[in-house]
Amino acid sequence: MKCGKAGATMSKPIEPFVHDIRVGWADCDPAMIAFTGRIPYFALESIDAWWEYFVGVNWYELNLDRDIGTPFVHMSLDFRTPVTPRHKLKCQVKLLKVGKSSLRFSVRGSQNGILCFEGEFVTVTVVAKTMRSQPSPPDLREILDLLVTVDE
Amino acid sequence: MKCGKAGATMSKPIEPFVHDIRVGWADCDPAMIAFTGRIPYFALESIDAWWEYFVGVNWYELNLDRDIGTPFVHMSLDFRTPVTPRHKLKCQVKLLKVGKSSLRFSVRGSQNGILCFEGEFVTVTVVAKTMRSQPSPPDLREILDLLVTVDE
Amino acid sequence: MKCGKAGATMSKPIEPFVHDIRVGWADCDPAMIAFTGRIPYFALESIDAWWEYFVGVNWYELNLDRDIGTPFVHMSLDFRTPVTPRHKLKCQVKLLKVGKSSLRFSVRGSQNGILCFEGEFVTVTVVAKTMRSQPSPPDLREILDLLVTVDE
Amino acid sequence: MKCGKAGATMSKPIEPFVHDIRVGWADCDPAMIAFTGRIPYFALESIDAWWEYFVGVNWYELNLDRDIGTPFVHMSLDFRTPVTPRHKLKCQVKLLKVGKSSLRFSVRGSQNGILCFEGEFVTVTVVAKTMRSQPSPPDLREILDLLVTVDE
Repeated sequence: MKCGKAGATMSKPIEPFVHDIRVGWADCDPAMIAFTGRIPYFALESIDAWWEYFVGVNWYELNLDRDIGTPFVHMSLDFRTPVTPRHKLKCQVKLLKVGKSSLRFSVRGSQNGILCFEGEFVTVTVVAKTMRSQPSPPDLREILDLLVTVDE
Repeated sequence: MKCGKAGATMSKPIEPFVHDIRVGWADCDPAMIAFTGRIPYFALESIDAWWEYFVGVNWYELNLDRDIGTPFVHMSLDFRTPVTPRHKLKCQVKLLKVGKSSLRFSVRGSQNGILCFEGEFVTVTVVAKTMRSQPSPPDLREILDLLVTVDE
Repeated sequence: MKCGKAGATMSKPIEPFVHDIRVGWADCDPAMIAFTGRIPYFALESIDAWWEYFVGVNWYELNLDRDIGTPFVHMSLDFRTPVTPRHKLKCQVKLLKVGKSSLRFSVRGSQNGILCFEGEFVTVTVVAKTMRSQPSPPDLREILDLLVTVDE
Repeated sequence: MKCGKAGATMSKPIEPFVHDIRVGWADCDPAMIAFTGRIPYFALESIDAWWEYFVGVNWYELNLDRDIGTPFVHMSLDFRTPVTPRHKLKCQVKLLKVGKSSLRFSVRGSQNGILCFEGEFVTVTVVAKTMRSQPSPPDLREILDLLVTVDE
């Protein structure tokens, strides 16, 4: 299986990628807002969806079908405004940097036009079965390089 | 209800606080390790347990019984070694700084003597019902000041 | 706030309601399938979405804005086929029965046309603040009666 | 690796097994009680702990080290009283029945002496890697037969 969307000529995306999340009752705590621990989940799901959309494989397929894992080595989050079930949570994902065997993403979550959180997330690329660090395979690297966005 | 352990004369704790977590099947993903998103949960649970142990009220009681909330404004985590169900996860919690209406914690999670993750977490103190920022009430402030640990 | 879709004349729905769920890496365990404990979450989210779609308020709004809670007293699930991230999870929700202060739902989850799980869920209606049982308010009862589906 | 506690002569347990769970802020929803979807998690964790205690391997070790999986085919739960963070949740696990390739468990969760929920859970035994049904290996079957409890 190759990465990339079948039959597509990849070109630099113009619009930032936004993943919509339905925030529900289950996500909320007795403060009536989404529990802090749910926010990293939302951000991670959005990065997973970014992979699916741009690379054509989600983490599950990347691990099981291509034996490539991308474990996280760092995350940092600032919480600006509480997240609630009253609006869709729109998570904008950008790939900020492609290193030899690392990737840096930013995720910004907004509801109703108001920034709720923003964070950065760094993964390393590994052989899924052994968890040994490896550079991204060339076909994957080619796609990733194209997807890097300068974060203004 | 007052904070602090009933009948206890508080004195500076000598040993760092360690909260034990049972990592299980439910915490793990197809990479056979605890899912990245679970790590913030483990850290947050440990801070909640820290409150319960030292202040005498957990977040639930603090919010419902004392109308004090401590929402998070920041978290930052570095993942050093994967967490698995093979060992207890020992989470060491330290209160690094007490601001006028903010608290900074560090959490370090280890398994079998090996550091798995470390992170910092900042909360602000609010009136639970209104989510308005407020300084910590004096009786609480007194306890918190006593609990600050210098992180070497 | 009244229940029901604004300006709509409610009539018996012809098509069963289906809620789509994105199953991801975070939902899966080391058996490479969605963890058993996630399935009730999927089913509950689908019932919450059913409320939002048909009644016009989700659980969060029902509790906070109308002071009506619907805690669960029973759930029963049969797991037919594992759920994975390879396909959308389509959850069909039916309201099977409206009692004086109880509701019985069925949820059937399918992926790629194959039934993955089916279950029944019973809630009681309470005053949210006090958790005291109460009959559904008339405007809500009217809508609910209309939505009952005979499960063939 | 063999199942069973090293060096132990297994004999029928006299006391029912009870697994303690710390219910926290993260488990609770805006109704100020543990979210319904968390209850199956608590029950499943308790069964996992039962395996660890009596058989000497938890689900993670059973799957990874012995290539045995025990996916669930059924669960049924009755919710009696809300679960909150005010008390330890004590989950009593009993193995009710050992079939050729199935196991039936009951789990009863109590807080402060009050029954909060009770449920039954059925698993089948499979080869973990292929998910094909298999009878329990003889050494495991021997232990399981010994652990069956009649539920009065």
